[in-house]
Amino acid sequence: MSGWLMVAGLGPGSEALVTPEVTAALVQATDIVGYIPYVARVAPREGLTLHPTDNRVEGERAAHALAMAAAGRRVVVVSSGDPGVFAMAAAVFEALEAGPEAWRDIDIRVLPGITAMLAASARAGAPLGHDFCAINLSDNLKPWELIERRLRLAVEADFAIALYNPRSKARPEGFARTLDLLRETCGDDRLILFARAVSTPEEVLNIVPLSQAKPDMADMRTMVIIGSSQTRVIPRAGAPILYTPRSVA
Amino acid sequence: MSGWLMVAGLGPGSEALVTPEVTAALVQATDIVGYIPYVARVAPREGLTLHPTDNRVEGERAAHALAMAAAGRRVVVVSSGDPGVFAMAAAVFEALEAGPEAWRDIDIRVLPGITAMLAASARAGAPLGHDFCAINLSDNLKPWELIERRLRLAVEADFAIALYNPRSKARPEGFARTLDLLRETCGDDRLILFARAVSTPEEVLNIVPLSQAKPDMADMRTMVIIGSSQTRVIPRAGAPILYTPRSVA
Repeated sequence: MSGWLMVAGLGPGSEALVTPEVTAALVQATDIVGYIPYVARVAPREGLTLHPTDNRVEGERAAHALAMAAAGRRVVVVSSGDPGVFAMAAAVFEALEAGPEAWRDIDIRVLPGITAMLAASARAGAPLGHDFCAINLSDNLKPWELIERRLRLAVEADFAIALYNPRSKARPEGFARTLDLLRETCGDDRLILFARAVSTPEEVLNIVPLSQAKPDMADMRTMVIIGSSQTRVIPRAGAPILYTPRSVA
Repeated sequence: MSGWLMVAGLGPGSEALVTPEVTAALVQATDIVGYIPYVARVAPREGLTLHPTDNRVEGERAAHALAMAAAGRRVVVVSSGDPGVFAMAAAVFEALEAGPEAWRDIDIRVLPGITAMLAASARAGAPLGHDFCAINLSDNLKPWELIERRLRLAVEADFAIALYNPRSKARPEGFARTLDLLRETCGDDRLILFARAVSTPEEVLNIVPLSQAKPDMADMRTMVIIGSSQTRVIPRAGAPILYTPRSVA
């Protein structure tokens, strides 16, 4: 069997943030599989078949990719950011585990990418410069009670908190509840970063205290980072710098 | 003033994981500042001055880099992995905040990189495929009690847990205490990944249940990831796959 499957991270948007390893995989591929806007980032060429699919079909998409690789194709499943962070890598392994035994012989690799929280953090300064956590705010795949419980424990641990998928049209209320919970547990002065479409021409950054944070400041293209109690701003003529010092006394 | 300062992430080791953005910054630099082994990854050339410095002088190193940029040099401060994750970005902003007011006008940017936990996760499968946290196990800059408290809350939140700087010659006992705490709170069957020197020729991965984890399985080049209660292994003829499913019932 000469086929293989790579699950590759395209980074947050800019081509300058795509690793050479991922670029090389795309050059060798016969098939690209993924969510429509991510597949659209791969240039069409002779001998390359693009398989764009809609959102919320991750399981079928993963099984299709595995079946093609088992049949000898060279398949790249593309995610934005890093494929191992709330993206396609786990979906591929779920399909692998549930699929035919022969799939376990497939040559399969995950190629890391710049995940959204690292890109957003870099643009704002270094809000993740001390201990932190990452929580997917979508309750499609877990109960809302678990999300809320994790938020409370993360605040108690005084982590900086990166929130993925903060808000979608289908679930507008979760992020509003999250802001209420954070104001109640962290107070009004805690800093929060809204980083939209980082590294693309539409990039917008906004740093506000929780008292000024509003639900509609986030959408599905927004990365939200809540500072720890130590996170601070350096004011200056240019864009302010948001960072978390390394030391805690 | 035509100088600038970029704080760049070189990724975990392989050149194939260095972003084009970072490569371009290194080409334009007049000065490279950083810890000896990271500066050694930058090829010397005419017109480029290398400033390798020892460990534990991050503050002086950051101030030196800022002073050179303020004087018109094009300075890249290099970190391994991502500069915003337990690396030089926060140190640079601490020095900026404490330094002369004029430093705030410096053109300064952080260039993200592939941080160790994402590289290790990709090589093992997708152990960070669900909510997770990252904790620096070094107690150089925070009290051990805070680390222990965060570990307990992270386990209670059922995060996968990425541990940076798990063990050094100067602090061999912290990681042993961590393993004791984890066995007590997570039980013997919880899975733990030791990923050493990921993406380099010396790479070694080892996945064991906590009952078999030993302190000397980690050193300062090792990334440790403790699975959540949901993290599982897919056995196969090749290397086993460690992953955390996306769903929690």
